Amino acid sequence: MLVERNRILTETIKRLLRRGADTRLTKITSKVHAADLSTVFQSLSASNQRKLFQLIEDPEKKGFVISELDEDIIHEIIETLPLENLVEIVEEMPSDDGVALIRMLPEDKADTVLGMMKKDEAEDVEGLLRYEDDTAGSIMIPDFIALKEDMTAQEVIVSLQTKEHLEVEMPFYIYVVDDHEHLVGVSSLRQLVVVPPLKALKDFMATDVISVTTDMDQEEVARIVAQYNFLAVPVVDENKRMVGLVTVDDVIDVLREEATEDILKMAGVGEEFIETKSIVRSTRIRLPWLFASCIGGLIASVIIGHFQASLSKMAYLAAFIPVIMGMGGNIGIQSSTIVVRGLATGRLHIRDIWLSMSKEIAIGFILGIFYGLLVGIVAQLRYDREMLALSVGLAVACSMTLAALSGSFMPMLFARINIDPAVATGPFVTTAIDILSVTFYFVIATSLLGI
Amino acid sequence: MLVERNRILTETIKRLLRRGADTRLTKITSKVHAADLSTVFQSLSASNQRKLFQLIEDPEKKGFVISELDEDIIHEIIETLPLENLVEIVEEMPSDDGVALIRMLPEDKADTVLGMMKKDEAEDVEGLLRYEDDTAGSIMIPDFIALKEDMTAQEVIVSLQTKEHLEVEMPFYIYVVDDHEHLVGVSSLRQLVVVPPLKALKDFMATDVISVTTDMDQEEVARIVAQYNFLAVPVVDENKRMVGLVTVDDVIDVLREEATEDILKMAGVGEEFIETKSIVRSTRIRLPWLFASCIGGLIASVIIGHFQASLSKMAYLAAFIPVIMGMGGNIGIQSSTIVVRGLATGRLHIRDIWLSMSKEIAIGFILGIFYGLLVGIVAQLRYDREMLALSVGLAVACSMTLAALSGSFMPMLFARINIDPAVATGPFVTTAIDILSVTFYFVIATSLLGI
Repeated sequence: MLVERNRILTETIKRLLRRGADTRLTKITSKVHAADLSTVFQSLSASNQRKLFQLIEDPEKKGFVISELDEDIIHEIIETLPLENLVEIVEEMPSDDGVALIRMLPEDKADTVLGMMKKDEAEDVEGLLRYEDDTAGSIMIPDFIALKEDMTAQEVIVSLQTKEHLEVEMPFYIYVVDDHEHLVGVSSLRQLVVVPPLKALKDFMATDVISVTTDMDQEEVARIVAQYNFLAVPVVDENKRMVGLVTVDDVIDVLREEATEDILKMAGVGEEFIETKSIVRSTRIRLPWLFASCIGGLIASVIIGHFQASLSKMAYLAAFIPVIMGMGGNIGIQSSTIVVRGLATGRLHIRDIWLSMSKEIAIGFILGIFYGLLVGIVAQLRYDREMLALSVGLAVACSMTLAALSGSFMPMLFARINIDPAVATGPFVTTAIDILSVTFYFVIATSLLGI
Repeated sequence: MLVERNRILTETIKRLLRRGADTRLTKITSKVHAADLSTVFQSLSASNQRKLFQLIEDPEKKGFVISELDEDIIHEIIETLPLENLVEIVEEMPSDDGVALIRMLPEDKADTVLGMMKKDEAEDVEGLLRYEDDTAGSIMIPDFIALKEDMTAQEVIVSLQTKEHLEVEMPFYIYVVDDHEHLVGVSSLRQLVVVPPLKALKDFMATDVISVTTDMDQEEVARIVAQYNFLAVPVVDENKRMVGLVTVDDVIDVLREEATEDILKMAGVGEEFIETKSIVRSTRIRLPWLFASCIGGLIASVIIGHFQASLSKMAYLAAFIPVIMGMGGNIGIQSSTIVVRGLATGRLHIRDIWLSMSKEIAIGFILGIFYGLLVGIVAQLRYDREMLALSVGLAVACSMTLAALSGSFMPMLFARINIDPAVATGPFVTTAIDILSVTFYFVIATSLLGI
């Protein structure tokens, strides 16, 4: 239904763009929620993206829309945007989104924009720019409520109504800091109204505050927020001073992005969702991933070539290549997917490498025996040659056991040497398994059949 | 680091369980956060799971821990739990979690528990039990703040401090309803303190409230909360009366679960994460999925068997089976993954079926030509037979184009007939492609080579 609504909006806006009905478009953009508006952009041509964006009047709304767009659409739009407009938009955005936008600009343009911004806004953004991409520091907002522990509940409530605090984006937790800005406690809005008005923060705050550091990976931050059902988690710097807040809405974005990224990487289609990109760009992203599989296939062909003499004598050997490769490939994908997702969600740890692998080998072995028997029986019924049936059955069993082993080992290995395990799945695992399966099959068959 | 911390806790608890240090365990369970405690359970044996759970003293904490556990662990624990304990736990849980727990019980046991519960708690749970699993109704909480539009900001603030409202789990939005309980507006805590105290709700509330219906799929609800960066979304019944609230923490759980589910389904390993299950159970879950691939492989073997005579004459034909199958299989996985993930995240719609497919065919064709040329050239260099090289190259190109087509078509088709497209990927797509690739190859090769 959401999809349906987004769709109707898209159709309407497309029609109005064709008709050049600018006044109506401006009116629509002012009425429609920024989140809805942003979904429209991915269906528009680059020139219409620019046009529609310019028709949005309110710079704050422009900012909201931009923060929801894909990176390549943002590039299209800001390329031709007058600098003053850009400055105005960045100023209106929450600082974490502003930083994300500034990061997309070429360095000199970024500097110009920062130079043109109001001083305090520019300082906020520059402060965040220090942190590396995809860390807690890069997705935190610098506005939060941090008060001293001696304040009473009543004083806190009064202070919440000062202008400075009213501007805080997510005022749900009241953080408590000591004289060195070190985070020592936390209270909720809800607690504030329950306790006696004269009670001091230090007497009712929770002291076991969970915080993250500025350099923590955003995926790890997301995991923490998800595990504890937080609405926000405080961020501290290397001196344990509180410097920001990662909020749950950003965590949701991180979780969705990372899940999509993992899924796409496992399939060997890059990291970003490419269906909305042009055919040429999609092709360019997908091409290199297929290279591994091509090389693997060619290596398999060399191996089979070695057994050409045997194949001429017993051509039906070739008939079982697909089933042996297929069974190995599929169980390998099962194993590697479980390991990759297990590592991503924190259910598996690289320290458990031996445990996971021995479990996978056991499963691979049981399934290998089962399907080896099945395929062997079919081979026997069809060709009535015991040794062929035995070779085929054994090859299936070996290939499946080995596939389960390498499917679990490879992502673990990649994770240990700090390469994203998701890229290890898909092309790499299946390619390795293809080569192994074919080799096993022909070695077993030629020795058992004596050819 | 979160993983690391969970790990240390697990080790400690395991050691204490071995030593039978019950008093220390009870102390630890009372200190450690329920979310941390729940991660320990997946590493324990069933008997230790039960033991540790019984050592938790506070029933509210027991409830928190249970709501974070996997379904099969919950089953282990509640099976032997005295009924009174179970009742006490359900009473302490937020109603949405209580409902989830009640749903796991056999019907007669569920009725007994409901009968033993305090009347108003039982009514809350029974109210939610009416809704189907995985809908907004099943994950909503029935506590929310809904006030009449004539109330002034000041009156609202006073009313927030009444006992009834202080018990509301997530009091961040103030919903406004008319005399028929119809949702007509929303205000935030923040707005309340900014407006003049005597202003009525109706004069400053937002009237374009986005709500969901009780029967809406939880994935759709999650998408809405994510798109609009909400902390909660109101749920209305068929008469448009507000009946509950879905909160962002539940949405995060839904998003994570659904992503894991999709990834696992695509790989043909069921829906739930199975690495923590026993070898026998994992094997049982993975076995049927491999069946499709086995049947496909056997069909391919029958097809190759038909071309046995040609193969005896030109055994090296067999050498290219793996590369043709592999290239088709991998591009097919790319296409189907993009479509499955696109449908899941709402970036693609089944209405776009023709657009998506024509794009995929174009990409498959370009990549097919590229890799067809590459493999063809390698074949020519190795065997120096133009017709063989041409056959191999053409087979790669055809197989890749067709794989891109079926990889995008099959999930779309499944989605249209309301079967989860994620299951269509993996085994089904690759099996279809294996059969197609082999057939193409031999038909092309035998006609071109005249054998």
